[in-house]
Amino acid sequence: MDRGRRFWGWGFEDAGLTPADDAALAARIAPYLAVAETPTAPPTPEEIHLAPSRLTPPAAIAPWCDLDDVARAGHTYGKSFRDVLRALERRWERPPDVVASPPDEAGVVAVLDWAGDAGAIVIPYGGGSSVVGGVEAPTDDDRPVISLDLHRLDRVLEVDVDSRAALIQGGVFGPSLEAQLRPHGLTLRHFPQSFEVSSLGGWIATRSGGHFATLHTHIDEFVESIRAVTPVGVTESRRLPGSGAGPSPDRLLLGSEGILGVITAAWLRLQDRPTFRASAVARFSTFEGGARAARALGQCGLWPTNCRLLDAGEALVTGAGSHHLLLLGFESADHPVEHWLARAVELARDFGGVVDAHEDGALDATATWRSAFLRAPYVRDSLVRFGLINETFETAITWDRFETFVGSVRHATETALRDVGAWPGIVTCRLTHVYPDGAAPYFTVLAAGAGSGRLEQWAAVKAAAMDAIESNGGTVTHHHAVGRDHRPGYDRERSDLFAAQLRAAKGVVDPAALLNPGVLVDPRGRGRQRDERRGN
Amino acid sequence: MDRGRRFWGWGFEDAGLTPADDAALAARIAPYLAVAETPTAPPTPEEIHLAPSRLTPPAAIAPWCDLDDVARAGHTYGKSFRDVLRALERRWERPPDVVASPPDEAGVVAVLDWAGDAGAIVIPYGGGSSVVGGVEAPTDDDRPVISLDLHRLDRVLEVDVDSRAALIQGGVFGPSLEAQLRPHGLTLRHFPQSFEVSSLGGWIATRSGGHFATLHTHIDEFVESIRAVTPVGVTESRRLPGSGAGPSPDRLLLGSEGILGVITAAWLRLQDRPTFRASAVARFSTFEGGARAARALGQCGLWPTNCRLLDAGEALVTGAGSHHLLLLGFESADHPVEHWLARAVELARDFGGVVDAHEDGALDATATWRSAFLRAPYVRDSLVRFGLINETFETAITWDRFETFVGSVRHATETALRDVGAWPGIVTCRLTHVYPDGAAPYFTVLAAGAGSGRLEQWAAVKAAAMDAIESNGGTVTHHHAVGRDHRPGYDRERSDLFAAQLRAAKGVVDPAALLNPGVLVDPRGRGRQRDERRGN
Repeated sequence: MDRGRRFWGWGFEDAGLTPADDAALAARIAPYLAVAETPTAPPTPEEIHLAPSRLTPPAAIAPWCDLDDVARAGHTYGKSFRDVLRALERRWERPPDVVASPPDEAGVVAVLDWAGDAGAIVIPYGGGSSVVGGVEAPTDDDRPVISLDLHRLDRVLEVDVDSRAALIQGGVFGPSLEAQLRPHGLTLRHFPQSFEVSSLGGWIATRSGGHFATLHTHIDEFVESIRAVTPVGVTESRRLPGSGAGPSPDRLLLGSEGILGVITAAWLRLQDRPTFRASAVARFSTFEGGARAARALGQCGLWPTNCRLLDAGEALVTGAGSHHLLLLGFESADHPVEHWLARAVELARDFGGVVDAHEDGALDATATWRSAFLRAPYVRDSLVRFGLINETFETAITWDRFETFVGSVRHATETALRDVGAWPGIVTCRLTHVYPDGAAPYFTVLAAGAGSGRLEQWAAVKAAAMDAIESNGGTVTHHHAVGRDHRPGYDRERSDLFAAQLRAAKGVVDPAALLNPGVLVDPRGRGRQRDERRGN
Repeated sequence: MDRGRRFWGWGFEDAGLTPADDAALAARIAPYLAVAETPTAPPTPEEIHLAPSRLTPPAAIAPWCDLDDVARAGHTYGKSFRDVLRALERRWERPPDVVASPPDEAGVVAVLDWAGDAGAIVIPYGGGSSVVGGVEAPTDDDRPVISLDLHRLDRVLEVDVDSRAALIQGGVFGPSLEAQLRPHGLTLRHFPQSFEVSSLGGWIATRSGGHFATLHTHIDEFVESIRAVTPVGVTESRRLPGSGAGPSPDRLLLGSEGILGVITAAWLRLQDRPTFRASAVARFSTFEGGARAARALGQCGLWPTNCRLLDAGEALVTGAGSHHLLLLGFESADHPVEHWLARAVELARDFGGVVDAHEDGALDATATWRSAFLRAPYVRDSLVRFGLINETFETAITWDRFETFVGSVRHATETALRDVGAWPGIVTCRLTHVYPDGAAPYFTVLAAGAGSGRLEQWAAVKAAAMDAIESNGGTVTHHHAVGRDHRPGYDRERSDLFAAQLRAAKGVVDPAALLNPGVLVDPRGRGRQRDERRGN
């Protein structure tokens, strides 16, 4: 990580909005929402003074352990609205005592061994881009904290061109991963919004959602095998293109959010770099009409690469237009995809979509939206500095409940914004991924903050949105993960018996509950289920 | 199950080979392999005299519990070569004490409760088509045995046409399932070879391989949620089109082979019934050439519905021709698929395939092969009666190892056949499913049996094949499951830590180890891992 990262917010110090960009942004928002005259200045390194670290790394690992206040502050939170706001408010409530950045897997083993000896907990840290409280320390656990930063495990170790697969270390970030694959003509093509500042191991641990809007939506589908370090040893699955030999061990680690082991390497399925592309944009007069077209496209077997529906509010905010837009795209390394697109456009028109014959417009709208998509977290940081509330949350729901569901979640969120005085505001929705049996709605909230209580205001709004999602049959997260923020909703969504099984599986590899305790399930000995006690 | 099932072999009493078919089969084989003059007569119900049952069902469940000798004999084994041979030899070594066929989920709960009280073990039984010892009782566990036959849980409970999904009971067999979906214009399109005599719950519990040769190869991809009864309660996952909320609970039950619960119902993703089809057959002069074409087809993104490669021996045995054949097919409910097929044929030709322009030939060869495919288990039963050894086994391997792997497994199997005196013989191979990163080779063995020791001969050959598969990097099963027969290979394939986690997960829901003990992992208290003890 030669390029400097912002310790208080998203991304890199040399990216993001310039003061001129900030001023233009404020001027654009001001007609709708009250904007602070002067944005809050980000904290500077000189301001950071934390309580002393409670840990002293042993000599063997001390060279790559960082006890510096700024490093510790930079590893205290992820990058949600709540995280950035706390950083802007100079609140570093539970900083790690040490940031350990091992150079290899043996170093990871050494850190876990040391943590066991020192009675410390370990929080695996990839790119730190969690927006769900996935990399912050628990407030109800007093043990010292080690943030285990894996960014030095950043290499593609082996490429199998025949199988289009590669063995890749868990700490590599998106751009470096793609740069290492490019000479082989291969790509993972996994582009979450966090692509520049998130890691392969983080994608696997959180079941990240990627480039493909249909078919292969999560990183899950691209994982061929996983290697992970646990406090009791290393576990590794066999490289296989498919298997029916018992429950999949990889599927236990996918989504494990650091509680079952530290993912040090994985074999990933790759693709040839696409050379054929075709895209179109369909405009709809209602969001529901666009969603019905998306449903048909999800069920038709064409498997579009892109099939993202933006509601009019979303399209407006990102500058992509003033209708409800369905962005359609196909790509291939093997064959022209015009036939695919032609049938997709027919389907969109069958459901009332208006598709311009001129294709340049499609590429323009798609490019405009994608550029805004990648820049959005930087814009968010500026909006927070200007006193606003800006956050996203996402879910998935089957088609039979879709329209009621989106309406209920939107209504609950708007009502909560009003109730806490964070108003006026706007709640937009897009569909990020489309399935034959449902879709993944993604909500963005932009609202006035009411004075100095934005943390509490957002907490109330988030709780209301989570309740609406859960009680209307959705999932607490489609691809942002559970973290600490989504635990209340997750606890209602999953069965108690499965939670007890997950705790038991954790107990096997992490008997002292060192690894990210409190994420997904409570640590051992606290709040354990009756059924699990019967089983032990 | 109104139609009578064969209690000693595959399928239905009114299907299979007639005496005239048997004679023709024997005449066709005789030039190559010694065939008994008179085939062994199948056992008749009158011959069956088992030791008395050790269980007395309580009054509430007695009406649907069967203690009859023939029912117990019919539930003693699955349908592998070994199973049929033992039945023909009148060996019923560990029959269940009771066959319980509950009419509903409450009945399943009642059986598990009774089993707990009675100190009995429970073997969930769907269609009983296991070819891996998945439904037979352990020989090293003296507890009484209940075979829990789920065939009365045979209804589609709810259809959600919008999401193209249905809630389906676990005991329904393939034909009834499709008949219930047909009025809605929907289909599951899951057609394992056992389709007529296997159940949805069995498919889920064993990660069955189905109709689609690429993309959606296992039942796994079609499962939206699962409901299962365990000894400590019912567990159920939420219906979702996709989720990133922790490790998938469904993926823990998929492949659990009855050890983690009894699958009573599941929401499955369905499809519109296809109306567009196109197919072709490509002939190759070498199996390896055909496999390279299959690899290209697996990697090109066309996702053919059918992409099955038969080696020349296989094609010959099934009467489908005399070359190495690649069967290609596309189907859709939405759009003509000629463009897809045209590009697939181009690819096959690029790799040396000869494709006839005349399409009827393609349909003929495909239909011939498919008909032989469904009839194969009946033919197998006759071949066993004629004194031969006939069995199949299957695996999966990445492309980089593919050619060496197939050669090694074939060689190890042939060598073992010779070593045990079961010679002459033929070992054929086909690819049943094709992935971007590998394929699923499926081997068929047909060999002379050396006198009366075919069980022991096959045991030695099977062990040699399993060793070759494991040591060359394959999986012990791609879609036949692990059962009792594959435990030695499975124990080498999976990591010890994952096995300990699986045991711990089982311990939570099945503390007394009632459910199919010894399948996948050893029962609690026997052979447990040191690491697990540390964790408890």
